Amino acid sequence: MKLNIAVLPGDGIGPEVTNQAVKALKAIASEFNHNFKFTTADVGAVAIDKHNDALPEETLELCKKSDAILFGAIGDPKYDNNPSAKVRPEQGLLKLRKELGLYANIRPVKAYNTLLDKSPLKKNIIEGTDISIYRELTGGIYFGDKTLSKDGNSASDLCAYSREEIERVAHLAFVAAEHRNHKVTLVDKANVLETSRLWRKVVKEVAEQYPDVTLDFLFVDNAAMQMILNPKQFDVILTENMFGDIISDEASVIGGSIGLLASASVGDKYAMFEPIHGSFPQAANKGIANPIASILSAAMLLSHFDLHNEAELIRLAVEKSLKLNITTSDINSVVNTVTTANVGDFIEDFL
Amino acid sequence: MKLNIAVLPGDGIGPEVTNQAVKALKAIASEFNHNFKFTTADVGAVAIDKHNDALPEETLELCKKSDAILFGAIGDPKYDNNPSAKVRPEQGLLKLRKELGLYANIRPVKAYNTLLDKSPLKKNIIEGTDISIYRELTGGIYFGDKTLSKDGNSASDLCAYSREEIERVAHLAFVAAEHRNHKVTLVDKANVLETSRLWRKVVKEVAEQYPDVTLDFLFVDNAAMQMILNPKQFDVILTENMFGDIISDEASVIGGSIGLLASASVGDKYAMFEPIHGSFPQAANKGIANPIASILSAAMLLSHFDLHNEAELIRLAVEKSLKLNITTSDINSVVNTVTTANVGDFIEDFL
Ligand SMILES: CC(C)[C@H](C(=O)O)[C@@H](O)C(=O)O
Ligand SMILES: CC(C)[C@H](C(=O)O)[C@@H](O)C(=O)O
Repeated sequence: MKLNIAVLPGDGIGPEVTNQAVKALKAIASEFNHNFKFTTADVGAVAIDKHNDALPEETLELCKKSDAILFGAIGDPKYDNNPSAKVRPEQGLLKLRKELGLYANIRPVKAYNTLLDKSPLKKNIIEGTDISIYRELTGGIYFGDKTLSKDGNSASDLCAYSREEIERVAHLAFVAAEHRNHKVTLVDKANVLETSRLWRKVVKEVAEQYPDVTLDFLFVDNAAMQMILNPKQFDVILTENMFGDIISDEASVIGGSIGLLASASVGDKYAMFEPIHGSFPQAANKGIANPIASILSAAMLLSHFDLHNEAELIRLAVEKSLKLNITTSDINSVVNTVTTANVGDFIEDFL
Repeated sequence: MKLNIAVLPGDGIGPEVTNQAVKALKAIASEFNHNFKFTTADVGAVAIDKHNDALPEETLELCKKSDAILFGAIGDPKYDNNPSAKVRPEQGLLKLRKELGLYANIRPVKAYNTLLDKSPLKKNIIEGTDISIYRELTGGIYFGDKTLSKDGNSASDLCAYSREEIERVAHLAFVAAEHRNHKVTLVDKANVLETSRLWRKVVKEVAEQYPDVTLDFLFVDNAAMQMILNPKQFDVILTENMFGDIISDEASVIGGSIGLLASASVGDKYAMFEPIHGSFPQAANKGIANPIASILSAAMLLSHFDLHNEAELIRLAVEKSLKLNITTSDINSVVNTVTTANVGDFIEDFL
């Protein structure tokens, strides 16, 4: 298969981990005789520094003519504590999601047997956990109107949703559930929010088209608790943008490290693959960043194009590296010097 | 001391647990020669059923002329799944908070030594955790304009904040930190939300008045993760209404049961005390509800009026009951028949 892949390493540890994912994809290409072409472009703080724009036009153009996008991470503390910054790295990511119509962010959460001891949660709580989170990604409070009063003393953010925005991501979640454990849990705050009540209404209607999938509901506060008390109760979680952001980062503790969690952001035309961890500027250029989330994002990319054997092989390689403890220090309790690149090399060799 | 206490048991397990808290307060009154007068009123689904109003006028009036309010719980599933219900139990609670100006919700989270094994988290993670969460309670997306389009196909909720709303709760958080470990963590989403950027700006300014308190910042998604990875890093957490709702319910897993967590909602004139758990309709009238959160809310009530010895005695009684395993099944792994009332009786006797 021939694939044009846009590579957007971004900020902080983004470039390091993305490098390892590209290595894995190249190994797969040579093993399976695929033709993958990689083109790199700037996004985030790096792009602001170079082009004064978190998402330069040429980056967006490249993404639009590529088959898939491999994304690193975004964000830089120098913007976080400056409330009046006019350009921000995150705008690059948000604009990319919006412009490419990537309305569904899919985040699998799994407890790896070899890592059960690394989690802050007890083994019996997490063992066997296998969740797929479907987070709406181009609507809600992320993209609603924002205001700041002239005197700078009051501000607002609008959370808005339409039936269409809810339906399209809901369908993806139900289809996924049909291939999994036949359960969708809608996470909302319907006892307070009008948008949540719309979500409940629309999702109930969508559910009727999937009679073999059970739908249940959980308020987001309760969901944040249940995720820790009993994560095994979940199969597919469907939720809006902000709640999905919070719940999926929280869920990362199940696997023992956020450095393991991959995600796919898909729409009707484009698809982007990225680790859910952020740019972690404190860890940048030290060789300590865990590349597995990025490598598993590459596996999700392969699955997206129905290259299931290829994706499976990457997952096997990752499990092997975990088993052999060829892992960075976030999940390796033995004092060790395994670097980001070491992990990538091992996986490359395995492939 | 003479105190008029309004008792609003509400829905589900609310009445059962509130009863036990009243028993504890009566025992304290007789022991310390105080004069506590209790007057009960309807709120929530119960009030809708009786008066077609989640917060009847006479309930509000009673609260306004009382010195403090002891609140049970609110909510009934028959309203949750009916997106077009015009009256909802939660409106009673939200209106109460707004009308009484209860702008700060204070939620202490502690790992009890006797309960370290009950938490889904590992002992070494939670041991020594002692957090005080300051959640803004009368602003944000809970109270902003809500719209539902005529055709019912789009909806919105507005999240708005003003400098004053942020300042007053921030001051309470910093004062609390001065008496604790001198650290405030502001939880927000300043990389996306305009309101969060306003929070950051205003809270930084407030912080300047408390030079011996350190202020740091955490994005809410990261905070949801850090709460589980390393809860001991937190002292005082300050956050807006919705994030506080999610983070504090999540934090309840540290203690091993949400049935242990008390809260105080305070403003400039009134104060209300309530367990953070909900109405749990499935558990109602079975004698299995844990009354400790409500009893500890009564202790917070006493502290509020500087009755510190009295409050301390209640806390001692609670710790004793935990130690002796006189606890409901949520935190009691031995198959047992300790009921809500048994726990209340034990604490009453102890006092
Ligand atoms: C960087 C930030 C804007 C982003 C988000 O909140 O969506 C990140 O946390 C994520 O989850 O991908
Ligand atoms: C019942 C509900 C409206 C309420 C809230 O969201 O504030 C509850 O969850 C709480 O935290 O007190």
